[in-house]
Amino acid sequence: MMKTKGYAAFTCDTPLAPFSFERRAPRENDIVMEILYCGVCHSDLHWAHNDWGWTSYPVAPGHEIVGRVIETGNAVTRYKVGGAVAVGCMVDSCQSCDQCRKGLEQLCREGNTGTYGGRDRITGEPTQGGYSKYLVVREEFALRVPEGLDLSRAAPLLCAGITTYSPLRTWNVGPGSRVGVVGLGGLGHMAVKLAAGMGAEVTVLSRHQGKEADALALGAARLLVSTDAAAMAKAASGFDLIIDTVPVKHDLNLYLPLLDVDGTLVLVGQIGPVAEPSTVPLILGRRRITGSPIGGIAETQEMLDFCARKNILPECEMINIQDINTAFERMDRADVRYRFVIDMASLDA
Amino acid sequence: MMKTKGYAAFTCDTPLAPFSFERRAPRENDIVMEILYCGVCHSDLHWAHNDWGWTSYPVAPGHEIVGRVIETGNAVTRYKVGGAVAVGCMVDSCQSCDQCRKGLEQLCREGNTGTYGGRDRITGEPTQGGYSKYLVVREEFALRVPEGLDLSRAAPLLCAGITTYSPLRTWNVGPGSRVGVVGLGGLGHMAVKLAAGMGAEVTVLSRHQGKEADALALGAARLLVSTDAAAMAKAASGFDLIIDTVPVKHDLNLYLPLLDVDGTLVLVGQIGPVAEPSTVPLILGRRRITGSPIGGIAETQEMLDFCARKNILPECEMINIQDINTAFERMDRADVRYRFVIDMASLDA
Repeated sequence: MMKTKGYAAFTCDTPLAPFSFERRAPRENDIVMEILYCGVCHSDLHWAHNDWGWTSYPVAPGHEIVGRVIETGNAVTRYKVGGAVAVGCMVDSCQSCDQCRKGLEQLCREGNTGTYGGRDRITGEPTQGGYSKYLVVREEFALRVPEGLDLSRAAPLLCAGITTYSPLRTWNVGPGSRVGVVGLGGLGHMAVKLAAGMGAEVTVLSRHQGKEADALALGAARLLVSTDAAAMAKAASGFDLIIDTVPVKHDLNLYLPLLDVDGTLVLVGQIGPVAEPSTVPLILGRRRITGSPIGGIAETQEMLDFCARKNILPECEMINIQDINTAFERMDRADVRYRFVIDMASLDA
Repeated sequence: MMKTKGYAAFTCDTPLAPFSFERRAPRENDIVMEILYCGVCHSDLHWAHNDWGWTSYPVAPGHEIVGRVIETGNAVTRYKVGGAVAVGCMVDSCQSCDQCRKGLEQLCREGNTGTYGGRDRITGEPTQGGYSKYLVVREEFALRVPEGLDLSRAAPLLCAGITTYSPLRTWNVGPGSRVGVVGLGGLGHMAVKLAAGMGAEVTVLSRHQGKEADALALGAARLLVSTDAAAMAKAASGFDLIIDTVPVKHDLNLYLPLLDVDGTLVLVGQIGPVAEPSTVPLILGRRRITGSPIGGIAETQEMLDFCARKNILPECEMINIQDINTAFERMDRADVRYRFVIDMASLDA
């Protein structure tokens, strides 16, 4: 066993606080990593607050994890001590069902093992996330951080990045694709960068004209103000894919007519109900509403390699672990451009 | 001009009554057909009652039309006098947009011209449907009724048939596909027959076990009682495609978990809102909600040819035109197995 420090939520309504716990002794296919940076995802906040009703305490959140290998099990073949390595939202899956065999571990028939809030598939112990000093993970669920990707900014790729990259790939976005992005937060700003990086023509949909400069700077071709009825009507049937990152209940009927025939609106933000959709834009255009979780391990690696090749990185605001509760409060009022990243060196301060 | 008799709605709340009107003189690419049979679609009733708010009166409904060619314009090449011919839900489209060029006239960028309730693209006159003696239609929007297809039962294929055939083809149903059908009415019973004809394993979803014998007789492999929570849980992730023919506002959350990863629920019945869907089954399985209208002309012809080859016909209850108001009342309480067809010979009685 390996003692590690971290920060955890101990109840749903108290601030995160220092937490000392033990990581398992590395198994033969495990690597041990020292965590250098960990992104702060909206899910971390939901989990800490038990917003979804299934949190067990204490829990150290964090599933956008970047660091270096400091130890390897005997059977590890892919990683060497000193290598830059990353872990995302899952640390295990059954590895034998049809979905796992297809590289869709995120959709494992038995459910994947969450990086935090899950249960180790062998011991049943609760898993703990990346708001901590060390992590032990089987090598199959670690990712190589390619040369040239700035470690201090790479962490958010592991959730915000892959959650937007995966639907762009599933729905075949490429040069000439007309992609809309609703919501310009942690996920949305990555959707813009990634879709633009794939050669798509990207439109940011926002209630406010004020985000235009940011949208263009991130790589969008334009901003479409969703409260401007005339502009929205003019944009009808003009999109192949809309990535909807809005994390609260909202009305899709505003966006559905924007899709072209056979176009798709992918929900990646809200976990729960959306307002009553009308079937009219669905029937009169075979438009689709769908959702998408993270991606599989191979796709996550592909995304990291793509980002290194295209020099795509999240916009980050670096914080110390001691500032995590303030960061949570600011995230709750969408006051972050666009992702907090914890500099884990602060843990020793 | 050509005088024709028919039945029409004159207001939203009075019974259909006899209606004499004129069809246009045939243009060079028109055929004139004598209508022998016309199916009675739920849309006819909605239209007559102005349930969607856009009805102009008087209107002769009817868009499941089968008859024989009695005259052809000079430029007509595909049809000869005496040939068995059919017309479905549309009688024209722009014929030049990308959708029309792809054979998706039902999704014409300018909107297709409805068989009734539309406007002739040249004269602007209101179109009138198949509850009548004669119809004049450009040959591009007529369908050949293949040899061997019973004319007295073929009419419902033109709407109920193609509306269920088209999504089965769009979503690649074939041998081994696991198809669910929700609602066992005019559309639902055709969805079962057509999907089974394509080699799919078909499950009818019903609130009542009582429909099991009918479901099996139509070609389903089984009936799944949607109010049986245990049976529904056991069936989770077991469907590639669900055709949802329910024509009223309802809750999709019951059905979404039945879809396998990347599975699709297609709405073909309800025109309007559905209850608030949860994004959870969408995100945790990339499941899709979509809709589908009728099909294009080429696909409608393909469907008729398929039905002739496979000997697939709707279950019909033949009525006289004088019984149309009673038929509407019975349809309103779902008291028909499974489609009323008007024997148009009764018009002369």
